[in-house]
Amino acid sequence: MDYREIAYEAADGIATITLDRPDRLNAFTNRMRDELIDAVDRVDADDDVRVAIVTGRGRGFCAGADLGDGVDIFARTGPAEFDPVRDADGGGMVTLRLYDAVKPFIAAINGPAVGVGITMTLPMDIRLVAEGAKLGFVFARRGLIPEACSSWFLPRVVGIGQAMEWVATGRVFGAQEALAAGLVRSVHAPDELLGAARALAREIAENTSSVSVAVSRQLLWRMLGEDHPRAAHALDSRGIFALARDRDAAEGVAAFMEKRPARFPLRVSQDLPDLWGGR
Amino acid sequence: MDYREIAYEAADGIATITLDRPDRLNAFTNRMRDELIDAVDRVDADDDVRVAIVTGRGRGFCAGADLGDGVDIFARTGPAEFDPVRDADGGGMVTLRLYDAVKPFIAAINGPAVGVGITMTLPMDIRLVAEGAKLGFVFARRGLIPEACSSWFLPRVVGIGQAMEWVATGRVFGAQEALAAGLVRSVHAPDELLGAARALAREIAENTSSVSVAVSRQLLWRMLGEDHPRAAHALDSRGIFALARDRDAAEGVAAFMEKRPARFPLRVSQDLPDLWGGR
Amino acid sequence: MDYREIAYEAADGIATITLDRPDRLNAFTNRMRDELIDAVDRVDADDDVRVAIVTGRGRGFCAGADLGDGVDIFARTGPAEFDPVRDADGGGMVTLRLYDAVKPFIAAINGPAVGVGITMTLPMDIRLVAEGAKLGFVFARRGLIPEACSSWFLPRVVGIGQAMEWVATGRVFGAQEALAAGLVRSVHAPDELLGAARALAREIAENTSSVSVAVSRQLLWRMLGEDHPRAAHALDSRGIFALARDRDAAEGVAAFMEKRPARFPLRVSQDLPDLWGGR
Repeated sequence: MDYREIAYEAADGIATITLDRPDRLNAFTNRMRDELIDAVDRVDADDDVRVAIVTGRGRGFCAGADLGDGVDIFARTGPAEFDPVRDADGGGMVTLRLYDAVKPFIAAINGPAVGVGITMTLPMDIRLVAEGAKLGFVFARRGLIPEACSSWFLPRVVGIGQAMEWVATGRVFGAQEALAAGLVRSVHAPDELLGAARALAREIAENTSSVSVAVSRQLLWRMLGEDHPRAAHALDSRGIFALARDRDAAEGVAAFMEKRPARFPLRVSQDLPDLWGGR
Repeated sequence: MDYREIAYEAADGIATITLDRPDRLNAFTNRMRDELIDAVDRVDADDDVRVAIVTGRGRGFCAGADLGDGVDIFARTGPAEFDPVRDADGGGMVTLRLYDAVKPFIAAINGPAVGVGITMTLPMDIRLVAEGAKLGFVFARRGLIPEACSSWFLPRVVGIGQAMEWVATGRVFGAQEALAAGLVRSVHAPDELLGAARALAREIAENTSSVSVAVSRQLLWRMLGEDHPRAAHALDSRGIFALARDRDAAEGVAAFMEKRPARFPLRVSQDLPDLWGGR
Repeated sequence: MDYREIAYEAADGIATITLDRPDRLNAFTNRMRDELIDAVDRVDADDDVRVAIVTGRGRGFCAGADLGDGVDIFARTGPAEFDPVRDADGGGMVTLRLYDAVKPFIAAINGPAVGVGITMTLPMDIRLVAEGAKLGFVFARRGLIPEACSSWFLPRVVGIGQAMEWVATGRVFGAQEALAAGLVRSVHAPDELLGAARALAREIAENTSSVSVAVSRQLLWRMLGEDHPRAAHALDSRGIFALARDRDAAEGVAAFMEKRPARFPLRVSQDLPDLWGGR
């Protein structure tokens, strides 16, 4: 797929996905939706990519759904009856794909992120934000509702109290409030944000087994939906059985005992144990 | 219903419900239980009310279940066999009604709140507290257990670790500890508490679509119980389909583009899309 | 059971379980697994024990699974096919037992706690840590995955964002970071750690009904897995019906009214109401 509304580059084990409509503050379109989903597929399929960063071109991260055509992006002029496929929320198509990702995603929120601009980051694993960036779950001020499955994700990231306050007021808030609430893990000077995200990405890329991280990511996100820890026990046992006798564990333990960096041979594309019997 | 143990007033889109037994530190009774449930019904049914504040008359918020008659409020002298209807926990009747509310509730905790005095606030969306107020999940010090469904709500508000510490010790703690744990969103001088709660209520009442807030509130609370974000996706898609072509979205987007305040026409009593096919 | 790799002592209502392989930084073995499970059984069965502390002998808490024999602890040389019983994760056997405990557990993390050394503490109710202690979910650096059901527990203790950062990087972090994230409730000078844990344990032992704490502990942990607060309402109602007419509530309320310490007569071994119809 050729990208027109995002940019994609990969180097040193790190993919960088850049929302790339700077003249529109990278406002979200159906085209951008499709390109983002394709980019997540590409990250997951490329064994040379161990972690991905998502950021925005120019002074914004993402100003939400593109309202340039009024409400046309929302209010279709076609059939009045809801069709689950045709009318599927585009933000949710992106976040559900991210939920299933096998590589970790880091959001480097370089400027304003409102509406789908912030909800798209919730299934990413780590969020960093630039000083001065404004964030907002502004849906109630537009006569709309939170989308991109954010009613599921947001309370799990910041707790139900903080989530309800942001959603019920629809107000815009700053980086420090986001930090205090745990929505972001750190705040950076704008010209240091991407460097900080890359340092974190390198820490993952250079030190960890990709297969370990992929299985761990699936375990943590999916166990949010399990009622009892015994669900994790069954998967842990099976996963450890598979991985402990495989080459990454042999290398990881040997490197630790010999106090040297590990070089993990396993590849996500081929060596991922299938704990769930298919996704 | 005539209120004897609470007071109810509504103005400027904000209902204020005041626990009103100041000589008993507003201790909770069966009568207060019924009046509170009725007041939540009233808030939800009145389109002129967009948000509700719950506070206490006098120096206390609510000192817990009224123990004036010893343990008689608990230990019935009737049949020894448990009856699910007759013996239903009164605090839980209130919190289950609040869980289903379609308007946001703000607790303005003006003084001591222990036992059901604090557990009744957990399904409210936002909690503010006065400096000097003492809070406590004191059940284990009385030979009782947390009620009002607080074993479900409290870990979702503050995390399981903080919840277990408060419940296992039963100790009373102050406003700053509540703030640090995320139990309350802010601490205020006693004479500024209600003003702060009203400012927050006005921010909701003056800027948001009531229908948007009602659907959002249902989505966030109910998604706590869903195993997978795809449950939210189905509801988001249907909700956006319904709301994006309705009048509040048209007004909200137009007002945003024209940089003017929005005046949302939809009414919760008539215009709420029924995403769940009945409550 | 004779303990060789842990020490167990009980006094003044408090059991202290000490991981006791100081020459190996108390690294975890199958023997230690069995002794820990036995010790939890012992705590739960002894009515004179109201709360337990788990700590480590010497300068470490627990350095993770014992890798002294290379990867042999993981990679069995036996059959290549997974057997759910034989290959059950040992860390998970310990944490599942702790999840079901009826007494509260306090972790006093006196030094390095990595791998199963930290994951074993997640189903404990309260964690305290010594200044200078290093913690880490280091699995991805060894080619392994989080175990001991930590993919279920960790996001419920610190949120999914913090959990994913620690697990995806596998990095070691300090006491202050653990405190900021809510993984521990307080940080102490090394020679004051055990004293602080004991003060907290005494607060529970001296002021609360053991039966109240036992039922509360089961309620809070189990309600994490319930979709709707009505599940708690049914159990609350039944539990209050049983306890409010029993002797601990009579004593607790009387002592409160008379402003004197309570002396609760009920015993966990005999008087625990069975709200679930068997575990």
